Amino acid sequence: MITESNLLERAAALAGLAPDTPEIVLDLDVVRANIDRAAATAHEMGVVVRPHTKTHKLPRIAHMQVEAGAVGVQVAKLGEAEVMADGGIEDILVGYPIVGEHKLARLADLAERVTISVTVDSDEVAAGISRVARERGLTIPVLIELDTGLRRLGVLPGPAAADLAERIAALPGIELAGVFSHEGHVYTQARDDGERERLTQEACRAAVDTAEVIRSRGLAAPIVSVGSAGTFRFAVRCPGVTEVRPGTYVFNDRSQIAQGAATAADLAAFVITTVVSRPTPERIVVDAGSKVLTSDRMLVPDPPASFGRVWGHNDWDVVRLSEEHGVLEVPPDAEARVGDRLAIVPNHVCPTINLASAVTVVEGGQVVGHWPVAARGRVQ
Amino acid sequence: MITESNLLERAAALAGLAPDTPEIVLDLDVVRANIDRAAATAHEMGVVVRPHTKTHKLPRIAHMQVEAGAVGVQVAKLGEAEVMADGGIEDILVGYPIVGEHKLARLADLAERVTISVTVDSDEVAAGISRVARERGLTIPVLIELDTGLRRLGVLPGPAAADLAERIAALPGIELAGVFSHEGHVYTQARDDGERERLTQEACRAAVDTAEVIRSRGLAAPIVSVGSAGTFRFAVRCPGVTEVRPGTYVFNDRSQIAQGAATAADLAAFVITTVVSRPTPERIVVDAGSKVLTSDRMLVPDPPASFGRVWGHNDWDVVRLSEEHGVLEVPPDAEARVGDRLAIVPNHVCPTINLASAVTVVEGGQVVGHWPVAARGRVQ
Repeated sequence: MITESNLLERAAALAGLAPDTPEIVLDLDVVRANIDRAAATAHEMGVVVRPHTKTHKLPRIAHMQVEAGAVGVQVAKLGEAEVMADGGIEDILVGYPIVGEHKLARLADLAERVTISVTVDSDEVAAGISRVARERGLTIPVLIELDTGLRRLGVLPGPAAADLAERIAALPGIELAGVFSHEGHVYTQARDDGERERLTQEACRAAVDTAEVIRSRGLAAPIVSVGSAGTFRFAVRCPGVTEVRPGTYVFNDRSQIAQGAATAADLAAFVITTVVSRPTPERIVVDAGSKVLTSDRMLVPDPPASFGRVWGHNDWDVVRLSEEHGVLEVPPDAEARVGDRLAIVPNHVCPTINLASAVTVVEGGQVVGHWPVAARGRVQ
Repeated sequence: MITESNLLERAAALAGLAPDTPEIVLDLDVVRANIDRAAATAHEMGVVVRPHTKTHKLPRIAHMQVEAGAVGVQVAKLGEAEVMADGGIEDILVGYPIVGEHKLARLADLAERVTISVTVDSDEVAAGISRVARERGLTIPVLIELDTGLRRLGVLPGPAAADLAERIAALPGIELAGVFSHEGHVYTQARDDGERERLTQEACRAAVDTAEVIRSRGLAAPIVSVGSAGTFRFAVRCPGVTEVRPGTYVFNDRSQIAQGAATAADLAAFVITTVVSRPTPERIVVDAGSKVLTSDRMLVPDPPASFGRVWGHNDWDVVRLSEEHGVLEVPPDAEARVGDRLAIVPNHVCPTINLASAVTVVEGGQVVGHWPVAARGRVQ
């Protein structure tokens, strides 16, 4: 049982279990608790979970998610889909516009061996998918990507999106499956839970309403898929949402805690580092730099100039990074000497995992594996 | 011959040579020119070059540097040293405090097969190296790391540094080789070439003066090793400096151009991307996000909120990044459609290379290889 009072002790134990540093250590007991809790919430609210694998990049954790009830997984890139399919995952949503002959051929190859769906936000992208599906005798389910506030990809909700859906539904080789959105803007626009809930509900309602417009035209659009880990708890309560796609909930990080989406007890991934120098009483240098922690700031409005925080020490922050050095500002009486190990909670765990070739996995207080990050760097 | 006028044409040709996107393409002709130019400058000024391999992480490019006259290479981490030694590089400076039994054993293993030197900034670190060197019957050359303004690792120049050098020189298994510094602070503190030159000269003089104090105590300290790509042209002119360690000069990036250390014609590494969406006339989304470009800002004072610039289009900037999406702001009449390829110049090329599992290599306008980034992620 994890309590606030034994967190520091757990962090020290995990730090000691890393074979060397810098190294990411995963606490599989916490991972399992995180997966089970989200699965129970979604089940209770009558929505399905399709976790985004971008956080873990590990087929074994994807299997844990599916065993807990997930309908399948989401990935961003085809290379990640290939890793998950090779790892035995049978239902994969590629939430990205597939562009170019080489990628279309890989999409068709995948669709011949597992259940693959894709997102689309333009006629051009849909035309390519339709063509390759027709050539291969496939029918590929497609979700219309909506821009519900993130201002990244996607068409704006409403009649124009329904027009696109109608044109796409008419293409051979494509089955219109519904709508898709990602409320990533809530992370950086909302400053408290009230605002988070309001923005999430607005975004989800826009997606649900657009699906209704599409259905009113006589088209099937059964799926309304929304999500992010930070908004999960609000999105599951939006009437009409059928699917939620949290990613970071599986490990959590400083940003998720700042968003109110996780507590310190839900942290499952730590960057274990060694103090390599203490040039002044106020400055510690550790062996994890931007090549381990990334240069990502926290996913909050006006993020502080901090690249990670030492677990158990709320005034020990990574205030500067070089590629191989993390520079910490600490109180002058901080007890830390050359050779000591520190567990750092990263700002954003997903790209942190992406930098690691492998992670050390701990269960029941013991190292149970050193897992290659199978989908690391699969950006194509 | 590369001229400003044919750069756009070259960029388009390189973009077309990427097998798929996102992909890093290296122009080996430019790499060779960059290596030769720095080698000629150093030769003329009577200093030796020891390139930092952190930029390329490729033993084949390290060999090009050695063939052009480099005395050896610098790496940051032991894992990189192992890759370079395995690749046939015979003189390697590990510019990092080696801490912990596992790493000390690896250091000794390396010292038994190639020429290895290391940097040290504390008695604790020196004691570990001395112990393992004695146990193995080795003598390991050590450089004292000075803090000449970066405020990262290192002891302040002057008598205290000489005291540390004296204590370290007395340890068995260690040979005091000189002093070491990195003027990384010049990137973010200097706003023009005058300031860059002044700060570099101050830093180099502090290192040279400290070496003189050490020598005045009857100790050998033949090497004064300084460097960064941005300050290379100033450091080679500092009397008493014996070795310079540029890294980024081999590929260059937006930061090096902003520092006045390179021109557009010296860029050798491009991130080739595909336009996957154009949701509005002013917004383009490409398939390279922070997992390709990193979240690094430019290495300049007050860096702009830009994560890369499209080659040949000075008003097409990557203004936002998600992990897999680059969001560009462009003029509404910009000619770019879904499926078009763009070559992006990264802010900071070193961590960009570190994200790639392999790079496409072009020479004489042809693809000549797809090289695994051998030292990628070797952070331990």
